[in-house]
Amino acid sequence: MSTPQRDIIVREVGLRDGLQIHPTFMPTASKLAWIKSEALAGVSEIEVTSFVPPKLIAQFADASDVCHGAIQLKDLVVSALIPNLKGAQRGLELGVNKLNYVVSVSQTHNLKNVRRARSESMADFKAIVELIKTLPKDQRPFIGAGLSTALGCSYEGKIAVSEVVLCAEQLLDAGADEIVVCDTVGYANPAQVREVMKAVLGVAAHVPVAAHFHDTRGTGLANVTAALDCGIKYFDASLGGLGGCPFAPGASGNIVMEDLCFMLDAMGLRTGVNLDALLATRQSMSESLSDLKLHGALARAGLPHGFVSTWEAMAA
Amino acid sequence: MSTPQRDIIVREVGLRDGLQIHPTFMPTASKLAWIKSEALAGVSEIEVTSFVPPKLIAQFADASDVCHGAIQLKDLVVSALIPNLKGAQRGLELGVNKLNYVVSVSQTHNLKNVRRARSESMADFKAIVELIKTLPKDQRPFIGAGLSTALGCSYEGKIAVSEVVLCAEQLLDAGADEIVVCDTVGYANPAQVREVMKAVLGVAAHVPVAAHFHDTRGTGLANVTAALDCGIKYFDASLGGLGGCPFAPGASGNIVMEDLCFMLDAMGLRTGVNLDALLATRQSMSESLSDLKLHGALARAGLPHGFVSTWEAMAA
Repeated sequence: MSTPQRDIIVREVGLRDGLQIHPTFMPTASKLAWIKSEALAGVSEIEVTSFVPPKLIAQFADASDVCHGAIQLKDLVVSALIPNLKGAQRGLELGVNKLNYVVSVSQTHNLKNVRRARSESMADFKAIVELIKTLPKDQRPFIGAGLSTALGCSYEGKIAVSEVVLCAEQLLDAGADEIVVCDTVGYANPAQVREVMKAVLGVAAHVPVAAHFHDTRGTGLANVTAALDCGIKYFDASLGGLGGCPFAPGASGNIVMEDLCFMLDAMGLRTGVNLDALLATRQSMSESLSDLKLHGALARAGLPHGFVSTWEAMAA
Repeated sequence: MSTPQRDIIVREVGLRDGLQIHPTFMPTASKLAWIKSEALAGVSEIEVTSFVPPKLIAQFADASDVCHGAIQLKDLVVSALIPNLKGAQRGLELGVNKLNYVVSVSQTHNLKNVRRARSESMADFKAIVELIKTLPKDQRPFIGAGLSTALGCSYEGKIAVSEVVLCAEQLLDAGADEIVVCDTVGYANPAQVREVMKAVLGVAAHVPVAAHFHDTRGTGLANVTAALDCGIKYFDASLGGLGGCPFAPGASGNIVMEDLCFMLDAMGLRTGVNLDALLATRQSMSESLSDLKLHGALARAGLPHGFVSTWEAMAA
């Protein structure tokens, strides 16, 4: 079973999106143990770090070491967040498989988040793609482009679908290999997800379109269900729902990886993930830092009686 | 706005399903304050108690007083769980608007839960309906019939859809006014919900068909989304997700009323519920007993910036 058949690709983003607001540093060895364990559990793509300057987010001071360690793992797509051209250069030097760039559809959020106008962020992205294109085709990393606040903004509230589509088109024109529709602040509902996903697929159906949901208001897996209905096959999540919202104490972060994998598996959709191994990864990850606050229902309740995973059928 | 237009009817079951496993007694005055406050917030149907013998569940020792108080409230459908014919007699004497009876589709669960074979529970239900039919038509309470473990059983695991349909037909033949499809132990996934709901609607489309989901494994609102797709318009929930699972410490109980109402409202589906008033009800309910463990995301995260409720449009 060297290349398992997957109906859905789940991607771990907790090491970046989860840890970036965590106040204490997770030791590099713990990060690498988490990555290795989750990759062995069957998660095929992991965003392992961010190349933001460590003076802004100290959690990512070990970005190079984490990338070095992660790219040794067989069959794992190692991705990293690149905030700018300099980050892209680092990613190329380190040999990261995939570089993830993010633009906020909300002009206000983009200004607050990266202190640049959205148009400037788009121009930066073009420069990044140009840099990558200087490499031979077989050495170029995959370029992911995220649409932050595509489903709502804590400054602007509702975001026009036309703006989401416009940004998707601009990123694709610039050379994005993938579009990620992000509910950055957990505002989305299933009806809205259907509307936005259909609109984005209208311009981006020739590349992978992924969903990045937060479970801030409890609608995370409901939004996954809606996205599945639209044909979305790529989902970001974080183990134990690590993360949260700096503006909502106690609120959960990204959708919970193990709950997502359970739901997909129960629906008969093959993720390639061994749920028992994933829960064991969560357990060891939770012990690596004393102040981690994890979320998630499956880890508390356990698998249903008599549950037969699609993974077992795949492995058989 | 005496009879608001509702697209979806949400029903509070926390006073019964939530409190039944809670170890300390909630004072009758607190229960009635909760019922009144939630009814004023716009929840139009509340299962206020159960007529199980107090020696089995002491929480329901005040069932008569709770019913007496609740039926004073204008425009509220007051329902109660009836475990048997004696319970039905009490419900009739007290003038409860709706009597809810439950049979487990799982033969094993029915035996363990009420120490009777499923066929005996079906016979009991027939006797209950016969009793109710001795009343003049305009004095009969509405008869709800729940299919427990319809989406999985902690003893038997998977439950055949044909068995669910068979039980629904038997309950309808006996005279049920409503069918409630219950995921008693929180095993359901959206694909399964679609399959089971479609099958049940195939025999029960002439009566209201409701969904009763537990969020034990995080799939609660995803299952709601799937049920909505099938045309289901009646959903049970409990404020603050009160309840839980006696076999899974920390696991949540019924789907969270305020998260459900938020999601439906955000989807443009009118529930008639004022979310701010509902959150205030949750707050005061949570203060009525010191050892309540509440769940739910909306209460922590708050409404999205600029959120416009359908309730405001209805009230305008």
